[in-house]
Amino acid sequence: MSRVVSWDLPEPAVARRQPFRFGYEVLRGIAQVDFMPNAACGVFFFAALFAAGWQYGLYGLLGTVAGTAAAYGLGVDKERIGAGLEGFNGCLVAVAFAVFLGPGHASTWALALGGALVSAVVTGALVNLLRPWSMPTFTLPFCLIASVMTIAAPGFPRVWHEGSALSALPRSAAGSPALDWDGIGHAFFANVGQIFLMPQWYVGLLFLLGIFVADLVAGLTACLGSVVGIVTAWALGAPASGVTEGLLGYNAVLVAMALGAVFLDRGAWSLGYAAVGAAASTVLTVAVTSFFAPFGGHTLTWPYILTTLFFLAAVPSFPRLRRS
Amino acid sequence: MSRVVSWDLPEPAVARRQPFRFGYEVLRGIAQVDFMPNAACGVFFFAALFAAGWQYGLYGLLGTVAGTAAAYGLGVDKERIGAGLEGFNGCLVAVAFAVFLGPGHASTWALALGGALVSAVVTGALVNLLRPWSMPTFTLPFCLIASVMTIAAPGFPRVWHEGSALSALPRSAAGSPALDWDGIGHAFFANVGQIFLMPQWYVGLLFLLGIFVADLVAGLTACLGSVVGIVTAWALGAPASGVTEGLLGYNAVLVAMALGAVFLDRGAWSLGYAAVGAAASTVLTVAVTSFFAPFGGHTLTWPYILTTLFFLAAVPSFPRLRRS
Amino acid sequence: MSRVVSWDLPEPAVARRQPFRFGYEVLRGIAQVDFMPNAACGVFFFAALFAAGWQYGLYGLLGTVAGTAAAYGLGVDKERIGAGLEGFNGCLVAVAFAVFLGPGHASTWALALGGALVSAVVTGALVNLLRPWSMPTFTLPFCLIASVMTIAAPGFPRVWHEGSALSALPRSAAGSPALDWDGIGHAFFANVGQIFLMPQWYVGLLFLLGIFVADLVAGLTACLGSVVGIVTAWALGAPASGVTEGLLGYNAVLVAMALGAVFLDRGAWSLGYAAVGAAASTVLTVAVTSFFAPFGGHTLTWPYILTTLFFLAAVPSFPRLRRS
Repeated sequence: MSRVVSWDLPEPAVARRQPFRFGYEVLRGIAQVDFMPNAACGVFFFAALFAAGWQYGLYGLLGTVAGTAAAYGLGVDKERIGAGLEGFNGCLVAVAFAVFLGPGHASTWALALGGALVSAVVTGALVNLLRPWSMPTFTLPFCLIASVMTIAAPGFPRVWHEGSALSALPRSAAGSPALDWDGIGHAFFANVGQIFLMPQWYVGLLFLLGIFVADLVAGLTACLGSVVGIVTAWALGAPASGVTEGLLGYNAVLVAMALGAVFLDRGAWSLGYAAVGAAASTVLTVAVTSFFAPFGGHTLTWPYILTTLFFLAAVPSFPRLRRS
Repeated sequence: MSRVVSWDLPEPAVARRQPFRFGYEVLRGIAQVDFMPNAACGVFFFAALFAAGWQYGLYGLLGTVAGTAAAYGLGVDKERIGAGLEGFNGCLVAVAFAVFLGPGHASTWALALGGALVSAVVTGALVNLLRPWSMPTFTLPFCLIASVMTIAAPGFPRVWHEGSALSALPRSAAGSPALDWDGIGHAFFANVGQIFLMPQWYVGLLFLLGIFVADLVAGLTACLGSVVGIVTAWALGAPASGVTEGLLGYNAVLVAMALGAVFLDRGAWSLGYAAVGAAASTVLTVAVTSFFAPFGGHTLTWPYILTTLFFLAAVPSFPRLRRS
Repeated sequence: MSRVVSWDLPEPAVARRQPFRFGYEVLRGIAQVDFMPNAACGVFFFAALFAAGWQYGLYGLLGTVAGTAAAYGLGVDKERIGAGLEGFNGCLVAVAFAVFLGPGHASTWALALGGALVSAVVTGALVNLLRPWSMPTFTLPFCLIASVMTIAAPGFPRVWHEGSALSALPRSAAGSPALDWDGIGHAFFANVGQIFLMPQWYVGLLFLLGIFVADLVAGLTACLGSVVGIVTAWALGAPASGVTEGLLGYNAVLVAMALGAVFLDRGAWSLGYAAVGAAASTVLTVAVTSFFAPFGGHTLTWPYILTTLFFLAAVPSFPRLRRS
């Protein structure tokens, strides 16, 4: 990254000692969901989760702590842990289990813990599986574990309390695509909040503030992604209800940040590339939602992963772009 | 390739200058759908598309031009562009959008253009992703983009004008497998035409003539693939209606050409290998069709890609076969 | 493998000559389904198949012989054939076709032979495709071919004699998870038998005896996997009917053996790792079953393959574990 404008929590000398260091790693862990190895950003992110519901905040904490601790237990490279790269999938796994299985059940707490531990194994596997292409693991561990769990859960009555299995054949969308200013504003922030599966606009605002604190350019790129997601969905005629809830744009935010601010040298070419990727991921979001319809319909961040994987893999073929 | 019997358009000196060179690249681009880096073959292919419907011809032209131009814009290796390897997926994407979304809508033209541009990115990605196995990209960019678009389209009312989403659970086939000579003849040519999603026998004939003009052996191998596809489908009892339309044999044509004439040293062993692959791809065609049934049922050339990928990947294990 | 406690058939001097050597290779071929390159184990395995039904025994024999012979015909490395690594997928393919298409039809015999031959090609492909990660092919060739065939079969009336296509949307499980001692005992052995798609407890017992004869530690690890599978399924509340038939635990048996006794250095850490993997594969089993529900619902050993692939790929990240 060139010329990052950022601010982080001052790291006192004690932070070099456990358990202070562990606390910093957990804060960076949650911040890494949006690519920010930044403890101050993590404070905002935890605040956002607790604002959405205290239980979600606790689940996020449990998942980040469990993922990071499992990495220690398995002897993972300290540098990866220090950057927060071992905590963010555990965080998302735990929050997703709370959202999809119900946060109030003892079984959900147990599964969230188990899922976060397994996410350390899956992360370790993907680091090696993706090595031939020097590709990061994105949120793949989260998506793999949360997809498997949400598809399997209706088969396990002791952990499934939601009644029928939500299976359905995909069907044509219906509903007006017309957006008013209120809907646009809601969509703009919800696109950031849905990365953590949260639809409230003020939760999205807190996440966005955290990104801006960590990295000004990354924050602006996230805004660009949100706008591209809204415009693409509207232009193709997606019903306004889904757009307003942020369901069509959260992948565009992640793709824009990944291509425009994180994994490529920053500049006009990578920004244009990021905008094309964000638009493509909006189409892919609807395709993935249809694909998962017979299996409970949880899209997660699969569209972001697939889009970014392909757009990053193409970079060596295009001399105008360069991996940072 | 050993001893290729072929003829191509004479390349005048002006062809070394733009825009003449670009014209040759577009002709080779459409011809590469059937592996032929041959401008004369491309003339036949465009004639076939226009014979199927003038709009399909224009869509094919738009897609090939857009894919090739995007590759120039992104600075892709000139040798790949010159061989037509950057145009054929754009061509197929545009034609598929016309077939599945309706050729007469402004939205379809816009999406065809966008899809052809994105196909340049996906092609660039697959070149790198498949490098560890020195594997070509086949029609993977086309299949990925067309599958995503056809699955997503019913979710976007502004671009979807076909009513209900065509989703269904797969069900057992019904109908007599008995073929008369008329049906066999129709199937034989339709198997070639369906590579471009066109069911008319005379369109398939024009495509086949183009292949023969470019490469006699490749043309004969395409005929072999078509026969193997018909025999396999008939022997397993597939209803005659689908066989006659070419829906069960177009993958067999592509597999036979790929293994028997293009990617392996030509000879008796590779021809036998190609016949086994063509038969396997016919079974796979029905499996892939069932797999996509809940999502609109577009099989595309996935069975060809998967069969050829596995049969090519196995070659280093078998001393009797060799990559050309 | 360190300190393997095992016994095998004495290999007389004649075994170094064909066709005696071929007989040993076929016995090792069927034994390799459970990782045992051991002819005595193969005798037990064939006995188990014949005990389940004489036709299943013959199908198993046909498949192992065809797969091994195809490898000879294609010139595969002799060392792989000698270890039985070219026969076990053919064996499983043939048995699966008998179970899913009906053992008494001439079409099933023909397809079983064809499937076993193609399994040699798919095995050759996967050896090369998985080389960048030095990963074994597991039962991937079997799963690929059997999934394709069972999904395609209802589209081919001449080979499909089972009526409707068995397609259904996944739905919530119902039924008590309570297990009595009789059910636990049945599940314990059926978990081993279902690896070959056989639900009878005495068939599972014969398979287990074969493993113990070949390798005492592997046999104990298989027992551990079976117990972990039963406990996990019960704890999550899976209906007892499926657990008793072994449908939720056969992947756990394979995962436990793969991670605890075959591919990693044996010890306490790998045994714990194997137990976590076995539990994860039990959840994955239910997810994969739901995933295949619209396509006929055959889970095969996909959950074992996916779990072991990820858990093995992660090993280089964890200094406490080592590939053997």
